Amino acid sequence: MASQFKNNSITKRDENFAQWYTDVCKKAELMDYSSVKGFINYLPYGYAIWEEIQKYLNKRFKEVGSHNVYLPMVIPESLFNKEKEHVEGFAPETLVATYGGGKELEEPLIIRPTSEILFSDMYKRMISSYRDLPKVFNQWCSVVRWEKTTRPFLRGSEFLWQEGHCLFETQEEAEENALKVLEIYDDLGRDVLAVPFVKGRKTEREKFAGANATYSIEALMHDGQALQSGTTHDLGQGFAEAFGISFQGRQGKLEIPYQTSWGVSTRLLGAIIMVHGDDNGLVLPPAVAPIQVVIIPIKMQEPGVLEACKDIYEKLKAEGVRVELDDDDNKTPGWKFSQYEMKGVPLRIELGPKDLSLGVATLAKRVDGSKTTEKIEDIVKRIPSLLEEIHIDMYKKAVDFLEHHITEVHSIEELKAAIEKGGYAKAVWCGDEECELKVKELTNGATSRCMPFEQVVFDDKCPICGKKAKHVVYFARAY
Amino acid sequence: MASQFKNNSITKRDENFAQWYTDVCKKAELMDYSSVKGFINYLPYGYAIWEEIQKYLNKRFKEVGSHNVYLPMVIPESLFNKEKEHVEGFAPETLVATYGGGKELEEPLIIRPTSEILFSDMYKRMISSYRDLPKVFNQWCSVVRWEKTTRPFLRGSEFLWQEGHCLFETQEEAEENALKVLEIYDDLGRDVLAVPFVKGRKTEREKFAGANATYSIEALMHDGQALQSGTTHDLGQGFAEAFGISFQGRQGKLEIPYQTSWGVSTRLLGAIIMVHGDDNGLVLPPAVAPIQVVIIPIKMQEPGVLEACKDIYEKLKAEGVRVELDDDDNKTPGWKFSQYEMKGVPLRIELGPKDLSLGVATLAKRVDGSKTTEKIEDIVKRIPSLLEEIHIDMYKKAVDFLEHHITEVHSIEELKAAIEKGGYAKAVWCGDEECELKVKELTNGATSRCMPFEQVVFDDKCPICGKKAKHVVYFARAY
Repeated sequence: MASQFKNNSITKRDENFAQWYTDVCKKAELMDYSSVKGFINYLPYGYAIWEEIQKYLNKRFKEVGSHNVYLPMVIPESLFNKEKEHVEGFAPETLVATYGGGKELEEPLIIRPTSEILFSDMYKRMISSYRDLPKVFNQWCSVVRWEKTTRPFLRGSEFLWQEGHCLFETQEEAEENALKVLEIYDDLGRDVLAVPFVKGRKTEREKFAGANATYSIEALMHDGQALQSGTTHDLGQGFAEAFGISFQGRQGKLEIPYQTSWGVSTRLLGAIIMVHGDDNGLVLPPAVAPIQVVIIPIKMQEPGVLEACKDIYEKLKAEGVRVELDDDDNKTPGWKFSQYEMKGVPLRIELGPKDLSLGVATLAKRVDGSKTTEKIEDIVKRIPSLLEEIHIDMYKKAVDFLEHHITEVHSIEELKAAIEKGGYAKAVWCGDEECELKVKELTNGATSRCMPFEQVVFDDKCPICGKKAKHVVYFARAY
Repeated sequence: MASQFKNNSITKRDENFAQWYTDVCKKAELMDYSSVKGFINYLPYGYAIWEEIQKYLNKRFKEVGSHNVYLPMVIPESLFNKEKEHVEGFAPETLVATYGGGKELEEPLIIRPTSEILFSDMYKRMISSYRDLPKVFNQWCSVVRWEKTTRPFLRGSEFLWQEGHCLFETQEEAEENALKVLEIYDDLGRDVLAVPFVKGRKTEREKFAGANATYSIEALMHDGQALQSGTTHDLGQGFAEAFGISFQGRQGKLEIPYQTSWGVSTRLLGAIIMVHGDDNGLVLPPAVAPIQVVIIPIKMQEPGVLEACKDIYEKLKAEGVRVELDDDDNKTPGWKFSQYEMKGVPLRIELGPKDLSLGVATLAKRVDGSKTTEKIEDIVKRIPSLLEEIHIDMYKKAVDFLEHHITEVHSIEELKAAIEKGGYAKAVWCGDEECELKVKELTNGATSRCMPFEQVVFDDKCPICGKKAKHVVYFARAY
C-alpha cells in the first residue's frame, strides 16, 4: 500500500496522551475520519488486525459449540420495547430509520445497538424441547450507538464487534458459558494481544441493561485509565420471559431457558495502541501484526543486496511469516525505518553490502529497539522464536505496568491518591451504589471497574461509609 | 445443532418451483424469516456456506492486490446526491434514518445500498499523486435496499455481500481490473459452486447506475430463469469528477483517476439451491458444504459398529474433511438419511454390523443417489477423490442443462418460443433500447441479460425492428 501520510512526527505520548493516540491512529494508517460525523473508515492496516482477532476467536468459540449466524441490522420499535430495563439502557443512544422506499414507515426501525432482542425473537420460534438446547450462536457485525463525543476505536457511532447469544436448559450451564467465554477473552489478551486484563464481575450499577450479572475484562492504558475490553452477560430468564421463550423440559413441564450474551469489539485495537504504543508510534504484538517482519535493503544498488533480501523474503513467506520487503528506491532506509516503526512492525531486518560480505544481517526489535546480528543462513529458522520472544517481552512489560498500577487502599484519601497516580485503586466496599457514586464524585470520575473473582475482603469497613465491607472492587477512571 | 424442523416433506420441484425453493431454504435450515418484514436470519448452515465463499474470494482477491476495509453503514443525504445517475438509480429503494440519540438529525442518513459514494469520498482525501495509485479495496458487509417483494437470498431488504472499489491511473488498468475480477467470479462458479455462468457485458439499459460499462455473470436456474450472480463495473471518471478526485500525473499535470467496483452477494446461495437442488432438497457442492461427509451407523448398539464409525470420523477429521457422525439413538437411520439429503450433504457413509463383518461400508452420493461399497481401510484415502468426482458430476450436469437451454433465434416468434421453453434466447440486436422493451413486452418479462464477449453477429437484421444488427444478446426471464 502506498502511504498517504508523508510526515511521521507525532505528539509525544506523555505530553498529550489523547493527541498522541489520535496521531498514532492516523499516521499508522489504522483508520481515517469519514465524512459521516462520528463514523470512521477502517483502513486495511487496522482492519487486518481485526481479521486476525476474528480468526483466533472463531477457532476458540468452537470450544463452546458456537456457530456463526447473521441477523437483521434493524429492530422494529415495538419489539425493541419488550424488555424494560434493556430499552431504558439503550433507547437514548439509538439511530432510528423512519423512511423506506420513499414512504414513511408504518413502524420506526432501530438500527441495532446490540441484538439480544432479535436473537430472543428468533429463539422463541426455534425452541420447543430441551432437545433443542443449548443454542450457541455468534454474529460478526457492526452496531450503531449514537454517541455525542467519539474517539477512533474507543467510542464511535458505529463499531465492529462479535456478539454471542446463547440459550441453556439450566442456570449452571449459562453461568459456565459466560465464564468460559470470559476465559477465552482473557486468553486472547495474554496469547494474542499481549495485553493482561483484570477480570471480574461488574457491580449492579455497571452491569448490562437487562442482565443478572455482567463479567468483564479490563485493560489498563498507559495513561492510567482502564478500558473495558470485553464483557459476558448472564442474562438469566429476563429476556426469555419477555419474549415468551419456553421449552418442554425433561420432566415434561414447560420451562424457561437461561440466556447469555458476550462480545468484544474493535475497542481492542484501542487497547493494543494504548498499552504498547510509544513516541515512535504503534507497537504491534506479532500475533496480530499485518506485517510481522519487514526487510529493508541498505544501498540496494550494490550487487547482491537485493537478491539476498529477496531470498530471505521468499523463504519467510514460504514459512507463513507475514513479511514485506520494501525495495522502493524513492525512499531512504532512514525514512523506511521510522515508517515501519510508526506502523509497529515487530521485527525489522536490515541488510547492506557490508553485512552481505560478512554473511550477516541486523535484526531490530520494535518493542525495545534492541538489535542483534544474525547469520543470514540462520535467519529463517530464528524468526519464529524471535517473534515469540517479542510477544513475551511485550506481555511482561504490560504485566509490570499493570502490577505497578494496582494500589490497595484503606481510606478515602488513599483511594483518591491512587486514582490521581493512575491505575486501579483496590478497595473493599459495602455494596451500596451510593458509595460508588461518592467515589466517582471524590475522584473526578473513577468508577468501579469490576469485583475480582478472588475475593479476599482485606478490611472490615467500607472506606466510604464505614459500613461492613462485603466486596473487593477495582476503581479506576475509564474510557 | 438440534433440528427445529421435524417434517421433511417439501413441495415437488416441478410442481411449484417457487414453493419448492422456499421449502428448501427453510427445511435445510439455511435461513429463517425474521420478525422484521423483508429481512431474514441467516442460520448457521446457510451462513457457513457464505463463509466458504468468503474464504475463496479473500484468497483470490489478493491476485488483484485487494485489501479489506470497512466504511460506515450510513451516507449523509447531501453526499448521496452528488452523482446524479447513481442517486436516481438508488434513491427509490433506500432506507433513511432521521432520528439519532432521541433528536431529529440535522441531515437524514441513508443506510448504504452500496458504497461507491463513501469510497469516492475517502479516496478524495487519500490520493494526491500517481504514486498513490492504484487503490484496490474490498469490503464485506450488508447493504439495505427497500424491496416491496422479497425472497430468501434472491431479493431482500438486507443482504450480505462484498463490494470492491478501486481507483486506477489509466482506463486500461481499470478495464483490466473489472475483467479480471469477473474471471475470478467465473472461477468461483466453476471450481467452487459447480455453477456455470454466461458472462458478458450489460446493455446500456441494464447497466449499473453511474457506470460506463457493467459486466456480469448470469446463472441459469432449474426453472429456466436467469439469476444475475455478480457484476463488475467500469465506472470511468464519473464518480471521480463528481467527488473532485484528482492526482498529479507522471507528467506533472492534474489527472482524474479511473474507477471500478464489483460485487457478489448471498444471492449465490440462491443460485446453488436452484441449480443443484431436487425433490429431496438441497444438493451442495463439496467445496462449500458445511458438512461434506456424514457417517450414519446402522444398528449402532451392535458391538464394534459405533467404534468403527468413530474411527473413520476421527481419521477424516484429521485429514481436514468437514465430517459429521450422527450417533443420535433417538432417530432411525432412515430419518437421518432423508434429513442429510434435505441438507444436501454430498456424501453419506453407512456402516452396520453386516458391513463391519465384511470389512466394508456403503458410500452414497447425494447428487445422483448412486452407492458404492468400499473397504473400510480404503475409505479415508478415497474420500478426497470422491468429493472431487461429485463436484465434476454436479458441474457437468449443470453445464448440460445450461447448454440445452440456450436457443439461437432468428425471429420474434423463435425468440418468444425460446423464452417460453425456458432459458436463454440468443439473438442479434440493433442496439436500441426500444427493441429491448419490445422483447420484454412480447415475452412477458424477458430482459437482456448480457452481450457475450465473443460476438459473432450471426444475422444481418435485428429480429425486432429489422434494422442492422450490431450485437449478440442473451435474453431471458430473470430473478
